[in-house]
Amino acid sequence: MDEAIRGFYFNTMYNLLKGKKGIIFGALDPNSIAWQTAERVHQEGGIFVLTNVPAAMRLGSIDVLAKTTGAQVIAADATSVDDLEHLVDQAMEVLGGKIDFVLHSIGMSVNVRKGRHYTDQDYDFTQKGWEVSALSFHKVLQVLYKKKAMNPWGSIVALSYMAAQRVFPDYNDMADNKAYLESVARSFGYFFGKEQQVRVNTISQSPTPTRAGSGVKGFDEFIAFAEKMAPLGNASALDCANYIVVMFSDLTRKITLQNLYSDGGFSNIGVSQEVMKMFEKQ
Amino acid sequence: MDEAIRGFYFNTMYNLLKGKKGIIFGALDPNSIAWQTAERVHQEGGIFVLTNVPAAMRLGSIDVLAKTTGAQVIAADATSVDDLEHLVDQAMEVLGGKIDFVLHSIGMSVNVRKGRHYTDQDYDFTQKGWEVSALSFHKVLQVLYKKKAMNPWGSIVALSYMAAQRVFPDYNDMADNKAYLESVARSFGYFFGKEQQVRVNTISQSPTPTRAGSGVKGFDEFIAFAEKMAPLGNASALDCANYIVVMFSDLTRKITLQNLYSDGGFSNIGVSQEVMKMFEKQ
Amino acid sequence: MDEAIRGFYFNTMYNLLKGKKGIIFGALDPNSIAWQTAERVHQEGGIFVLTNVPAAMRLGSIDVLAKTTGAQVIAADATSVDDLEHLVDQAMEVLGGKIDFVLHSIGMSVNVRKGRHYTDQDYDFTQKGWEVSALSFHKVLQVLYKKKAMNPWGSIVALSYMAAQRVFPDYNDMADNKAYLESVARSFGYFFGKEQQVRVNTISQSPTPTRAGSGVKGFDEFIAFAEKMAPLGNASALDCANYIVVMFSDLTRKITLQNLYSDGGFSNIGVSQEVMKMFEKQ
Amino acid sequence: MDEAIRGFYFNTMYNLLKGKKGIIFGALDPNSIAWQTAERVHQEGGIFVLTNVPAAMRLGSIDVLAKTTGAQVIAADATSVDDLEHLVDQAMEVLGGKIDFVLHSIGMSVNVRKGRHYTDQDYDFTQKGWEVSALSFHKVLQVLYKKKAMNPWGSIVALSYMAAQRVFPDYNDMADNKAYLESVARSFGYFFGKEQQVRVNTISQSPTPTRAGSGVKGFDEFIAFAEKMAPLGNASALDCANYIVVMFSDLTRKITLQNLYSDGGFSNIGVSQEVMKMFEKQ
Repeated sequence: MDEAIRGFYFNTMYNLLKGKKGIIFGALDPNSIAWQTAERVHQEGGIFVLTNVPAAMRLGSIDVLAKTTGAQVIAADATSVDDLEHLVDQAMEVLGGKIDFVLHSIGMSVNVRKGRHYTDQDYDFTQKGWEVSALSFHKVLQVLYKKKAMNPWGSIVALSYMAAQRVFPDYNDMADNKAYLESVARSFGYFFGKEQQVRVNTISQSPTPTRAGSGVKGFDEFIAFAEKMAPLGNASALDCANYIVVMFSDLTRKITLQNLYSDGGFSNIGVSQEVMKMFEKQ
Repeated sequence: MDEAIRGFYFNTMYNLLKGKKGIIFGALDPNSIAWQTAERVHQEGGIFVLTNVPAAMRLGSIDVLAKTTGAQVIAADATSVDDLEHLVDQAMEVLGGKIDFVLHSIGMSVNVRKGRHYTDQDYDFTQKGWEVSALSFHKVLQVLYKKKAMNPWGSIVALSYMAAQRVFPDYNDMADNKAYLESVARSFGYFFGKEQQVRVNTISQSPTPTRAGSGVKGFDEFIAFAEKMAPLGNASALDCANYIVVMFSDLTRKITLQNLYSDGGFSNIGVSQEVMKMFEKQ
Repeated sequence: MDEAIRGFYFNTMYNLLKGKKGIIFGALDPNSIAWQTAERVHQEGGIFVLTNVPAAMRLGSIDVLAKTTGAQVIAADATSVDDLEHLVDQAMEVLGGKIDFVLHSIGMSVNVRKGRHYTDQDYDFTQKGWEVSALSFHKVLQVLYKKKAMNPWGSIVALSYMAAQRVFPDYNDMADNKAYLESVARSFGYFFGKEQQVRVNTISQSPTPTRAGSGVKGFDEFIAFAEKMAPLGNASALDCANYIVVMFSDLTRKITLQNLYSDGGFSNIGVSQEVMKMFEKQ
Repeated sequence: MDEAIRGFYFNTMYNLLKGKKGIIFGALDPNSIAWQTAERVHQEGGIFVLTNVPAAMRLGSIDVLAKTTGAQVIAADATSVDDLEHLVDQAMEVLGGKIDFVLHSIGMSVNVRKGRHYTDQDYDFTQKGWEVSALSFHKVLQVLYKKKAMNPWGSIVALSYMAAQRVFPDYNDMADNKAYLESVARSFGYFFGKEQQVRVNTISQSPTPTRAGSGVKGFDEFIAFAEKMAPLGNASALDCANYIVVMFSDLTRKITLQNLYSDGGFSNIGVSQEVMKMFEKQ
């Protein structure tokens, strides 16, 4: 993203989230979508607690973000219901009331990390990845739901990826985890909507050069392919952060159970002229 | 919508569209989505031209809206390329520059009006309905595209309905027209994105008691059904207007070629507990 | 397709359509899907009438097919309700009873033929293409429906293409026509199912080197791209014919309102390793 | 299903699967889809091994089915890779060669059985259900793939349910498991197609009064609702078995990575006139 556009965004403040309170999972370093979301939410007047697993907190620089956004950091392992209960209780105390928005930006495939091919899974790894990437979202929702911790018209967003719908061979078991995650958004979103008037949606983002993404084999080639396919090019982490802000705001109150594409149009392209040109040359 | 919520919205101003210029098709009376969009855009700092066919202008009260929003009215039949060219030229002159946003809210089935069942179409009526409801969107896009009338990162939205994906027996040939309209959004959105960095999306809104909707047989029953199915209840015209504002804003720059549901979650519900209860009683 | 496989198919006879009567639209020459469908239906014991517009009949060699399959040819312009009524009446007389299966394989874009780009449509051409490619299917259905010409559990199939869901830039206005066609299948399929127990589906086939396909610019490149994307490679006209036979048979009686992909898996691929490799080289 | 239709099917033999060898998971009693599939495959000339977990085998009457279809029964817990390896080795020995078709019809929610609401999951139950209902499919595929146990153009089908796409509140965590299962079909189907020319698909069947289905709360009401929505009414277990036979046959060789609806059209209905009528009365 060129600096002019970046500057434009960062000087802008619409007060879209003025007075709103939230929890943001998964901010690791300035490249991460959760990090940029935290910055944008801060600019829009929202206050929040940041959270991550202790290991990720050591790896990244969440304290820097906490300082610039005036946020408190509360460590929590999102696969632990106990940790999540503590987190939600603490967050409400720190923020002085119920929660208006939550971002779930958590995903990790042990099979990918350990170099296991999709057709040669170690099922302990598969289970661990599912717990972290998919089931953790159900746990977050269940803890919030049981504690009635969300305000009416609150908004919960989880980050997904289009591999939940279509095959990206190197995405490995994360594809299946994202499919599960999106299903949880619908299934739980039904009850959260009916009983507590809370929205639950997922955002399916362009491939983004974050630390998580860069672990995937062939990631650079895939970013290049997606850039040539999407009519508006890939969406950046900041573009995604802006979409999340919108989904947290009062302007999208009746949007729920949706999987929303932040991808420059990639998801609805069969082929682009640029990609076709590569086949002409042959 | 209760007055408290309405009041909340109407006192709110985020300046999301400050300095942006646009064209709004289809505002008829205060119930219409285009009307409420115009009011919301005005509150968010956008300026625009209102347009409709002369017949609709006589039927409704567009001049009232023009006065409250400081808009100029330019008559145009959206099935006429000449009219559209005149409209776009005039709009740029009146607004003092290129266009940032366009709302296409046009739809009409002659078969419905004349009481022709879907299995007993009069094909002259079918063609007329297709021209007004579906092809008109291509014409609007083509005129804007050829004139290079849109600013980079401009946003074009057309209103659709879920009958484009699933059967609603009384929706008649409007279902097929909406499917065509959504396809035009994708097909043209590709070129508009690649060549002129402009977004094109459709919004698929809950059944809404507008004048257009109320012409459909069984409409009240359907609104009641949808209300019982959607976890958050039906989205109102104002909810839709808010979503359109968001899609016109700079916060959704990389969202394109999408069909977005503003429907309280209806689109992803197989059945709700309330509807199931009706089957228990039997 | 290698000859061994071809031979395998053509010696096979399951009697899947024994005693069934039908109408096949759109057989032009041996490359066309309708042609190969007619051959396969014949092998499976079905009898049928072949039909096409007079112009296409002169262009192709339908009489050869009629001879080898024992079919009668009845000329009809599928945009003419009169022609269709005559066709259906004649078909029932010739075949000695009501109809069990119908294949609609009709599509043509005047804009493509005349070299008009999608962003520079001649709207008379657009309308003509819509009438031939999309509305004709509604007319076929309406004539069959009103005449109660279908037997219970009859099956109607129209050929579509994935451009109805995703953008293929050179597919031009055929994309929008196919979207309309698929919507007609759903909309009319509802009433045909409820009232007359008849199935209506569309099949979305791989790009196929037929006369219709080869008119599209960049078609060869696109076939090469699709071949590299689809895990099983592109489906051939014969593969499609086999799928149509299956959909005409009694083994798929409760399948209706569906759009079915005959495409080697292309529709659910985000990217393949072969395509990714082309981006590595750069 | 009335006896006339049943008789029709059961006297019919097309030899669609003559000489084909397979494995069928999950036949419990004559109501189960796997049971009826086994009967139909037998009629079509296929031979196969039946398998289930020992507990289910005691509960049901799989030996009766084995006798009538000439099949051998091999016990296997589909969550155990060891068991699956043994099963596949034995099956190839018993059948005298590689495998042509596999049916995965396995699903069970401990949360449902133990009466835990979706918003009050016991996560040990959730994990167990995921292992049995979703991960087991990956294990089946991985064992077959690594052993190169499938013949080229072999076909693998797993049973799914539309709750993977849309919310059915009582379906509980099975919805999320089915979403995972369908994703596995796509993800693994890619590699199985590319490397071994094998198809992998899921079939999404109407609610069916099997033992598994009848455990779900409100199941009878839901069957009644679906029956009123689907234009052709619900698909029976036999309808599903017929569709599976078709997917195992050589007539669908290029269909892969698909989720296919066997549901009388339910999946594409927004609302039916019968359901609307219930809202009129109010």
